This record gives sequence, C-alpha cells and structure tokens, in this order.
Amino acid sequence: MHDPLPGSLTGKTIAVLGGTGPQGRGLARRFAAVGLTVVIGSRDAARAAETAAQLAAGTGGSVSGADNAAAAAAGDIVVVAVPWEGHADLLKGLATALSGKVVVDCVNPLGFDKQGAYPLAVAEGSAAQQAQALLPESTVVGAFHSVSAVKLDDPEAAPVDTDVLVLGDVRAATDLVQELAGTIPGVRGIFGGRLRNAHQIEALTANLISVNRRYKAHAGIRITDV
Amino acid sequence: MHDPLPGSLTGKTIAVLGGTGPQGRGLARRFAAVGLTVVIGSRDAARAAETAAQLAAGTGGSVSGADNAAAAAAGDIVVVAVPWEGHADLLKGLATALSGKVVVDCVNPLGFDKQGAYPLAVAEGSAAQQAQALLPESTVVGAFHSVSAVKLDDPEAAPVDTDVLVLGDVRAATDLVQELAGTIPGVRGIFGGRLRNAHQIEALTANLISVNRRYKAHAGIRITDV
Repeated sequence: MHDPLPGSLTGKTIAVLGGTGPQGRGLARRFAAVGLTVVIGSRDAARAAETAAQLAAGTGGSVSGADNAAAAAAGDIVVVAVPWEGHADLLKGLATALSGKVVVDCVNPLGFDKQGAYPLAVAEGSAAQQAQALLPESTVVGAFHSVSAVKLDDPEAAPVDTDVLVLGDVRAATDLVQELAGTIPGVRGIFGGRLRNAHQIEALTANLISVNRRYKAHAGIRITDV
Repeated sequence: MHDPLPGSLTGKTIAVLGGTGPQGRGLARRFAAVGLTVVIGSRDAARAAETAAQLAAGTGGSVSGADNAAAAAAGDIVVVAVPWEGHADLLKGLATALSGKVVVDCVNPLGFDKQGAYPLAVAEGSAAQQAQALLPESTVVGAFHSVSAVKLDDPEAAPVDTDVLVLGDVRAATDLVQELAGTIPGVRGIFGGRLRNAHQIEALTANLISVNRRYKAHAGIRITDV
C-alpha cells in the first residue's frame, strides 16, 4: 500500500502526454502506483490504451489511454514527456485544452553524436519557456528532467535515489509539482529557480548521460544541505 | 594531519588566479591544508601576499602570493577563479605562461537582478570553452563551479558535502582534476562530460543560488548511483 496523497493532489487526474515513451511511461507508472488517476496520452490512442492497460494491471491503479488532445483535456495536471522534436507542434494545438492548468514540462532538447549528448539551442531559452510561450493561459513548471526512466518504470516501484528540481514562476504551481514529485518513493521535489533557469536543468541531462556512460550507472542528483 | 596526496599530485604547485576572492581563497585554503604547495594570484600582488600569509598561518601549509601572471608561471596546475567580467582579459595575456599546463576553470558567467541569478550568454558556449579558445596550448578543465565558498573557506576544514563535476576533453587532465577535487574532505570529483557540456554546469550555480535563497542553505550537489 502507499501513503495517503497530500491534499493538494487528492482526486486529481494526471495526464502524461507522450506517456508511451520511456520517461512518460515511467512517470505514469509511479503516479498510478500511489493512487493518482492517470491518463496516458499518445499520438496513437490505441497505443496509449495498450500502455494504460499494462500499467493498470501492473500497479492496480486507475490508468486509461487516449490521444494526446483528449488526455490534455482530461488532466488536472498535465505532464509533457514527448520527444523534443514534437514538442512545439504538439503544444501549439493544445493551448485551449490546457488553459488554466499546471503543465509540467520534462522535455530535454538534446542532440546526440558519436561523442554523446549535447544541449540544443532553443529560441525561447528552454523547452519549458517554449511551452510557456505556446500556452499563455497555462502555468508551466519544469520538472522530472533527468529521472532515470529505467528506475521509474520498475514494476517493483523501488525508491529512486534522486531529487527533482522544480522550476517555475508561480509558487502555488511549483509547490504542487514538488508534492507530485514527492509521491515517488525516494524522491524529493526541490524548488530550483524560475523558468528562466530551466535551460541548464534540461541540459544537465546531457552531463548525466556522460556520467552514465563513464560509470555504467543510472545517475541522479541530490541537493545537499537542504 | 591529512592523508598522503595521490601520486599524480605529489610535489605539484597549484596556482589560484583570483585567489583573494571568496571561491579562490576557499580552494586555496583547502589545497594548502592537504599539503599542496599553493600560489595565490591576484591583480594586486600585495593583496595576494596578505591572503597567502593568512592561509599559511591558518593551515600550516605552504602558501605564497604573487600577481596573476607570476602565479600562472609558477603553477603546475592553474585554477582560474576570477570574476567573469575579468576572465577573458586575464587569460588573453597568459597563453604563453599557461602553455602545456592543465588550467582549471571555475568561473560562472552569471548576471544578477532583483529576481536572482541567471546565466549569461557566452559566445564560445561557456567560460571553460572561452578559456580553451584563448589558451590553445593549455588543457582546460571545468570544475569547482558551485562549491560553497563559505564552506571551503572554513578554518576548521570541515568536510564539504558535495560532488564536483569535472568537464574536459582530455582524460589525463580530467582524471588529475578529479584527484585534486578529491583532496577536499567530503568531496568526490566526478567526470561530468566534455567541455561542450560545461555551460550548464556553470549555469547550474544560478539554480543553486535560488535553492540557497529558498531554503536558507549552502547547497551542493551529489551524483547518485556512482
């Protein structure tokens, strides 16, 4: 059994756009495992339903699947975990569905070559800032950028040894996402600054990929003295 | 007493340019405390000598002071801990003195306004890449970006609860700087990627400043699963 949810999250539906990808699926699994209602979004509603059925069976939680637009409409809190390549195109169509909601952007704009991963330049500064520009009536928060998808998508739901840096300009929204992060065993949600400081947290994932390669690890980060 | 130095560091002189500033002074104190020979560099040789005398008295170590150029010439490993504003001007004059040496860049190009700290754009990508461009005959390594100056400059040399991400393109140099970081009690030097991934580690200091403000902390980072 899991602990009771914090009051701010009780009865909330979490939509995970891109919830059939590794990061989205792992987050969806964890949220379902602690008793949150989860809607998996995907370009392909049938694929979303398939992942949802697997996660519902695996966690005993409430998980359904839909296309991304329907998932966005259904969520109280909407997590964006799509590949960077599809980020802007997806969000352009969802401004109305996401109006008034907290949108949690987990997307890392990275390139890859034979020397590994490196950050891509983003005109708006970061994926999170791009999301905020495309969703002017939503409150965008950056979080979950570098939590190991492998560890999240663990059927045993073992604790994940990492903090999640939560970035945003609206205190009520960052507080809420810190609580959401804190539902994952082992994880603390730590306020990490305003949205203008999201770029480097997205880009830090490139460094953790280098760490993983050098040390054969699934690295995370902890903030000390907090 | 301190542990014996690793062989790679035995007999080495560490120059700290900008060694009278808080970060430089703190690093110089720690290196002196573990038995490394330290030369403090400053624009003002008299001020460097004054800081050196304080650190020598405080640590019982070997610390001298000089102007930045003389310190650069004296160091086997040269740490650059000057304010960003003076970074390029300083290094332009030191390419010959630093030729063939490992140069450890700790500089964070940050701006500050009433909302806190934020990263500045750097034409070369990062302070470390700017240093490498200005010092083509040196091997530049990025490290020590966000180690609390307050904790470093502790007369009791208490352990510092942080890892230091070490960035660079030459394995022998990053290995050496990882060992240098590891001389500070509590600290691990962790390889964090190539120099092209230095920007976000420099910029991460802005996030840690936000963390410090929110949580009244002197935050550091730990890499988990390593």
